[in-house]
Amino acid sequence: MSGTQDFINQNKDRFLEELLDLLRIPSVSADSRHKADVKRAAEFIQTKLTEAGADRAEIYETKGHPIVYGEKIVGSNVPTVLVYGHYDVQPPDPLDLWDSPPFEPVIKKTDIHPEGAIFARGSCDDKGQMYMHVKAFEAMMAGGELACNIKFIIEGEEEVGSDNLEIFLEEHKEMLANDIVLVSDTGIIANDVPSITVGLRGLSYLEIEVTGPNRDLHSGLYGGAVPNPINVLSEMIASLKDEKKRINIPGFYNDVLELTAEERAAMARAPFSLEAYKKSIGLSDVEGEEGYSTMERASIRPTLDVNGIWGGYTGEGAKTVIASKAYAKISMRLVPHQDPDKITELFQNHFESIAPPSVKVKVTPHHGALPAVTPTDSPAYLAAAKAMKETFGKEPVPFRGGGSIPIVALFEQILDSKTVLMGFGLDSDAIHSPNEHYGLFNYYKGIETIPLFYKYFAEMK
Amino acid sequence: MSGTQDFINQNKDRFLEELLDLLRIPSVSADSRHKADVKRAAEFIQTKLTEAGADRAEIYETKGHPIVYGEKIVGSNVPTVLVYGHYDVQPPDPLDLWDSPPFEPVIKKTDIHPEGAIFARGSCDDKGQMYMHVKAFEAMMAGGELACNIKFIIEGEEEVGSDNLEIFLEEHKEMLANDIVLVSDTGIIANDVPSITVGLRGLSYLEIEVTGPNRDLHSGLYGGAVPNPINVLSEMIASLKDEKKRINIPGFYNDVLELTAEERAAMARAPFSLEAYKKSIGLSDVEGEEGYSTMERASIRPTLDVNGIWGGYTGEGAKTVIASKAYAKISMRLVPHQDPDKITELFQNHFESIAPPSVKVKVTPHHGALPAVTPTDSPAYLAAAKAMKETFGKEPVPFRGGGSIPIVALFEQILDSKTVLMGFGLDSDAIHSPNEHYGLFNYYKGIETIPLFYKYFAEMK
Repeated sequence: MSGTQDFINQNKDRFLEELLDLLRIPSVSADSRHKADVKRAAEFIQTKLTEAGADRAEIYETKGHPIVYGEKIVGSNVPTVLVYGHYDVQPPDPLDLWDSPPFEPVIKKTDIHPEGAIFARGSCDDKGQMYMHVKAFEAMMAGGELACNIKFIIEGEEEVGSDNLEIFLEEHKEMLANDIVLVSDTGIIANDVPSITVGLRGLSYLEIEVTGPNRDLHSGLYGGAVPNPINVLSEMIASLKDEKKRINIPGFYNDVLELTAEERAAMARAPFSLEAYKKSIGLSDVEGEEGYSTMERASIRPTLDVNGIWGGYTGEGAKTVIASKAYAKISMRLVPHQDPDKITELFQNHFESIAPPSVKVKVTPHHGALPAVTPTDSPAYLAAAKAMKETFGKEPVPFRGGGSIPIVALFEQILDSKTVLMGFGLDSDAIHSPNEHYGLFNYYKGIETIPLFYKYFAEMK
Repeated sequence: MSGTQDFINQNKDRFLEELLDLLRIPSVSADSRHKADVKRAAEFIQTKLTEAGADRAEIYETKGHPIVYGEKIVGSNVPTVLVYGHYDVQPPDPLDLWDSPPFEPVIKKTDIHPEGAIFARGSCDDKGQMYMHVKAFEAMMAGGELACNIKFIIEGEEEVGSDNLEIFLEEHKEMLANDIVLVSDTGIIANDVPSITVGLRGLSYLEIEVTGPNRDLHSGLYGGAVPNPINVLSEMIASLKDEKKRINIPGFYNDVLELTAEERAAMARAPFSLEAYKKSIGLSDVEGEEGYSTMERASIRPTLDVNGIWGGYTGEGAKTVIASKAYAKISMRLVPHQDPDKITELFQNHFESIAPPSVKVKVTPHHGALPAVTPTDSPAYLAAAKAMKETFGKEPVPFRGGGSIPIVALFEQILDSKTVLMGFGLDSDAIHSPNEHYGLFNYYKGIETIPLFYKYFAEMK
């Protein structure tokens, strides 16, 4: 595909500049104050799809943030690829931990990225990875080498649960019909260890409110005699795991798919250094469910984490107060065969059942995601593997990821479509964290690899 | 004391207006942004003491907030009363729970205060109660009936531990020499049940920082495999109490003064309705240390309460993050014979010892206070009791309070002075809480009662 690859080589700087422009738009879907910014990001994608040569590119309004759809149909005799991505990003806080402003991208060299990485919220998740597809599309059009029909569905609510995507899929099954869904929202093991994600954990996310007294009280006058909602919440959270770090919710593990000894042995062969892992996140020691390795705990096992907690006086100095309310955000990562709705209900019932009579507890489900496993023998997987082998010079490793991409299950249910997760990020890219970044190596490698996927997928179908 | 009481009756409106002016100054000692406001409050007191007729009234700078000292010496043949109070206030947050702005005082009627109460931060604690003494002093001067030498020491750091007061006392023992310290920073049981506080709990206040990974992490990629500092902090907090709600810190109860059956029986005779108590703070049930009554839990028993907790994502919506750090503010109320420094050390050592190896824990002591018990047979107590009996028409009940007034122990240690705690607030005044208020009945009753204390104290000495 010399025409396509030449075009990529000639336009690398512009491809980067355009991404930086996109990263300057603070499209934080969780924060209603950014609604207009989210819209601007959608319009940016629409424009670029049109410029790249789409037959049509439109913005579909939803009850929440808009969805961008674009397509280029080259013929009925070739397969159709549906590219999914999202242009919304996680909230940037805590802001004070960023070395540079989250929405003012800068390029800096790191040990892992000697040729430089783009530091900005969304640089990897998912603006950078999504935009690779827009540029690969432009290159294939310029090179006259687009081997498949291509459809883009780029949403703005992935970081808040994709609530309106489901409705959109239901309403546009026809338009979205495809032979494979292609997504770059996952990672590779390392820049010299290409991999393709073949499994994803699901998610159940809830918010907790514990109410004790009807107002904040003086801890001197009332301390010891009334329920303190922060102490109570802490005790309830602590009771959710046993001493083996297993989750204490009745029925939680009922549907968990246990891997065979062979599967676990295969996983253990993937390159992994516990020392390097601990060093990269500054830990003296790891912890997790007894009887499982760190890689297993982070991929094939379900989890429960408190993502946020707050209550009482959190300002400067000391305030001797007993708060009226305490809050927590809690999420559980789920593995194949666990149903997020069922787990959410189990959690809700259990959490309410363990509340002491002296407090009121409110549990509000935020959103969920089904776990997913993708096949490794499909034409799509084989095409992705062949494309990566060509650009990385190495056969990619099939890998079970720990994160959730709710839409994989949605595409399966509603469109009856399989998904191939050909991502190019790294765990160390700090997505969802301060100083999120994305390697220039990874950005360009993605743009170069994607056209090859189309070529080989067309050949294999 | 007709002259004094007439003057009070003729100047009630002005006495109120002056207090409202003082309450409009946001003298929040814990918040460095309010340093200038705290200074303004000190100058306000200095001015009013001078206007009331003090021989001298001065502002003494300290490393922190200033201390106001004023005095009127009427002769060497009369006893000297040292009035202590504080002009600093607690932080007002959570602001959204106030019905009116905390520093814009309004007068509203309540069930308990049919003649109206002043709603503002500091209205009771302690601007309102402290200012009663300034006005009582003015009235005694106007009436020519000041029966004792009077010295005022009004500080601006009571809500942050009175760190600089100790140094000041050490440096001015001579100037502060007295026969009794008189303080109104406590309450009465009810407006028709006068009482005098004869016991106070001590305090140990600490701040906790738990660090897991060196940065916020994506809970999908890392969840289950790394220590989550919020989960860990919750588990550590939960472990601090056993199922009987006793505090699990080795040695914590060693020095606790246990009351005799007679003393407990005497306490139980004080009027108290558990139903009214629960209703007043909207609780369906109370909780606390097994084997003790609600009144005992709130006064003669030590406690441990989390006053604030925070970590991770606390904004709108959902963020699937594992925080790098989690924080808590924890205070323990102490009873006679418990030493705050020793308890602080016990807590620190225990808390560090129970931290899992995978996290780092930092414990920072904020401030402490010694518990105190005051005698009921001293001339000062008897003078206060006689004064209250005259204005309330009822013998006051000796009462063990739950709060801490660190300076009571300081005056004992450094000035070798006894303190009488003749306060006029109510538990329901919501001090340290939104909508703090102070009854007009209580404000005026205090101003009327204080001059009688001077009269009877002079007679009894």
